[in-house]
Amino acid sequence: MFGTSVTFLRNSSNNMPQNEISVLGAGLVGSLLGSLIKEKGFSVDVYEMRTDPRSSEVKGGRSINLALSHRGIRALQLAGVYDQIKNELIPMKGRRMHDLNGELYTQPYGKEHEFINSVSRNGLNQLLISHAENRGVNFHFDHKCTDINLDETIISFTNGKSVHSKVLLGSDGAYSMLRQKMEHKDRFNFQQHYIEHGYKELRMEPRNGTFAMEPNFLHIWPRGNFMLIALPNPDCSFTCTLFFPFEGHLSFESLREPNKVEGFFKHYFPDVIDLIPDYLEQFQQNATSSLVTIRTSPWCYNNSMLIGDAGHAIVPFYGQGMNAGFEDCRLFMEWGEKLGFDWDKLLVFFSQHRKADADAIADLALNNFIEMRDHVADERFLNIKKVEARLQKAYPDIWLPLYSMVTFSDMPYSQAYKIGKLQKEVMNTLEEGFDPDRVELQPLIDRFNNLMQDAH
Amino acid sequence: MFGTSVTFLRNSSNNMPQNEISVLGAGLVGSLLGSLIKEKGFSVDVYEMRTDPRSSEVKGGRSINLALSHRGIRALQLAGVYDQIKNELIPMKGRRMHDLNGELYTQPYGKEHEFINSVSRNGLNQLLISHAENRGVNFHFDHKCTDINLDETIISFTNGKSVHSKVLLGSDGAYSMLRQKMEHKDRFNFQQHYIEHGYKELRMEPRNGTFAMEPNFLHIWPRGNFMLIALPNPDCSFTCTLFFPFEGHLSFESLREPNKVEGFFKHYFPDVIDLIPDYLEQFQQNATSSLVTIRTSPWCYNNSMLIGDAGHAIVPFYGQGMNAGFEDCRLFMEWGEKLGFDWDKLLVFFSQHRKADADAIADLALNNFIEMRDHVADERFLNIKKVEARLQKAYPDIWLPLYSMVTFSDMPYSQAYKIGKLQKEVMNTLEEGFDPDRVELQPLIDRFNNLMQDAH
Repeated sequence: MFGTSVTFLRNSSNNMPQNEISVLGAGLVGSLLGSLIKEKGFSVDVYEMRTDPRSSEVKGGRSINLALSHRGIRALQLAGVYDQIKNELIPMKGRRMHDLNGELYTQPYGKEHEFINSVSRNGLNQLLISHAENRGVNFHFDHKCTDINLDETIISFTNGKSVHSKVLLGSDGAYSMLRQKMEHKDRFNFQQHYIEHGYKELRMEPRNGTFAMEPNFLHIWPRGNFMLIALPNPDCSFTCTLFFPFEGHLSFESLREPNKVEGFFKHYFPDVIDLIPDYLEQFQQNATSSLVTIRTSPWCYNNSMLIGDAGHAIVPFYGQGMNAGFEDCRLFMEWGEKLGFDWDKLLVFFSQHRKADADAIADLALNNFIEMRDHVADERFLNIKKVEARLQKAYPDIWLPLYSMVTFSDMPYSQAYKIGKLQKEVMNTLEEGFDPDRVELQPLIDRFNNLMQDAH
Repeated sequence: MFGTSVTFLRNSSNNMPQNEISVLGAGLVGSLLGSLIKEKGFSVDVYEMRTDPRSSEVKGGRSINLALSHRGIRALQLAGVYDQIKNELIPMKGRRMHDLNGELYTQPYGKEHEFINSVSRNGLNQLLISHAENRGVNFHFDHKCTDINLDETIISFTNGKSVHSKVLLGSDGAYSMLRQKMEHKDRFNFQQHYIEHGYKELRMEPRNGTFAMEPNFLHIWPRGNFMLIALPNPDCSFTCTLFFPFEGHLSFESLREPNKVEGFFKHYFPDVIDLIPDYLEQFQQNATSSLVTIRTSPWCYNNSMLIGDAGHAIVPFYGQGMNAGFEDCRLFMEWGEKLGFDWDKLLVFFSQHRKADADAIADLALNNFIEMRDHVADERFLNIKKVEARLQKAYPDIWLPLYSMVTFSDMPYSQAYKIGKLQKEVMNTLEEGFDPDRVELQPLIDRFNNLMQDAH
């Protein structure tokens, strides 16, 4: 498929195993990527430090379900695996907000047929591994890396084995070992930033054999500086997640005593007490985890490249972490085709051309936390959403709301981010107390068109 | 001096050496810090991976001379070591700019008695080590760290030794091992950012037994996107440094062939060719180094704390890297006194209260590169400097130029940065083509006072 490189030949003479393509990490991105690359005729070996998830109990520490949307779906379709998962998905058509009195308000995500999908992380991961394995990808579980030699592209494992690879792709997540090795190389930019909030998951059991709340929504309890959300699971439970400050007046730190937790839930989430009767035990027993944004550049060094969370882990508030990682895989393959799978060129090209999009979705995800926890209950915000829906309907070719561009389109994240900023500028011109059903649309569109022209 | 902690006792029972205060790195900051802490009656051990610089040849890789100014001098005075170095300093009263034709322009740094000082990094380092050793600090050279256990505060070395410390202070520089260990702890924020420019040093030999150029200035050849600077040395040589892009049209990468280097120097630094006859050989032989900014928070974990470059390495364009590190040491001691050397409190207090200043000087240093390489030859910029000098003279209690606040005062960097922004706002109101000698000062001061009031 490609010419044998000098590096490849030099290492062929000793006894070290020689891989064509090695992938670090058999998570969602690694297993999908392996499958896609194998399908192009390359030999692929995937190394994973954990045990095969198909043969073991799931361990905690990662979110249980995720929101799969257009970008992720396209990549799964490209791999020919979407049809196997689609019946497991639970559509979420919009946000269902719970106010302090337990009253409900609904806000659709997009048009009638546009929704996001709750999916089990572990279920999807198992499916992707089996799919890749059926295509001939070699999986090596219980293989924990001890070292990576970037100059020779050699991975060493705790079991004493070492392997040389022509190409090494690191889909080993937010705490990537491959990235750590790159960080120590000269002129490698890196940032890890933790927000002041952590999260804790609580399980809401089914009630009378079915969902305790309306399943086809993403439920939100927006509370200003913090929020609770809930996503449905196929077993009719919900996984609820509290995003909450680590320290401060109202924080995980301030809720150490049981009576304080009880007082907190009674005041802020009165309707949840009935829905999760053992909320107190769960709150005390379940782990509190942190939320990090990772930015790096470049993503490649010699024959190695980072992909997915390893290069650009983001906070979960836009539901785009997995989708961005899957889109990485699709673009990597499309650009690979264009470059005739000249790997040297492809690694650099991907690293350069995808970076702006990774930065954009990182910012968008951070901003969306403020929107979700604070603004979704805000009248002006809701009215702007209404005007946006009218604009989208009247000018479908011109006005696509930011959420839709990010969630229901293939537009590069960086472009969506830029257009979103211009849209916000337009919406900021709406006077205080405007009537969302009567605001004239033409002047708004004219303003937007002018801004778009200026931007070019 | 302080109560023995539980951790301290627990480890006392085995054979591992027990230090009171350990300092990682015997560079400028580590050796000064050791000396200051020892003087308060604590036992101090300093570990350095390199050989004792007093007994070995200096290796390359670090800048040869540095600019010592007020903040650094105050800390040296506090340690009682300033008198031993002051005769070695070469005052630099201002910038001497060299234009494309070799014409010279001078711009003073401050008032008559205000100047910065060229000092030998290695000479100062040796002096600080000897000074600390005379006070009873234990230095351990050739001690390279292999691991640090932050939870137990145990350092392990390549020679197989391990040592437990009550307090561990990491002054181990921009590539700090202590910081690397902290980075892997949850919720530790970290950023390393390399600018697109690197640097290369060239030595300008003395001429006829004396300096080849006027010694009491910092010489600059500002060239827009890049620049050459020169600082005097006590042996009548100059150390010149070219700050230049790594890649691009005019870059280290583009100057690979000798004739291109020659063409470049002939065009951009015609007067340097005569002053450094072997510039071509030096350009080809001397290393090209990168320039990094490091930001971290927090700076402490358990009984360990970062100080100096380890917590906040900056680019060299404000001449403040060493000065900021020395000021760290002074503030650490002053705050230590206030907190009765309650180390648990002190490490957290320092980490929290010094961070904003570190961030400010990091930004100021990045911004000053643009000023030095681009604006110092700009007419409007020079005219603004003239107006600022008039303002400082007429309103000495109100208007202190940013450069003076940073270089000749003790004002927290973060405060200087904020005031500097307001001053810039005032100066931006000056109309195009203003006459610096005639501009009315009162309206400018009024505007500035208003902005200062708004900021409070």
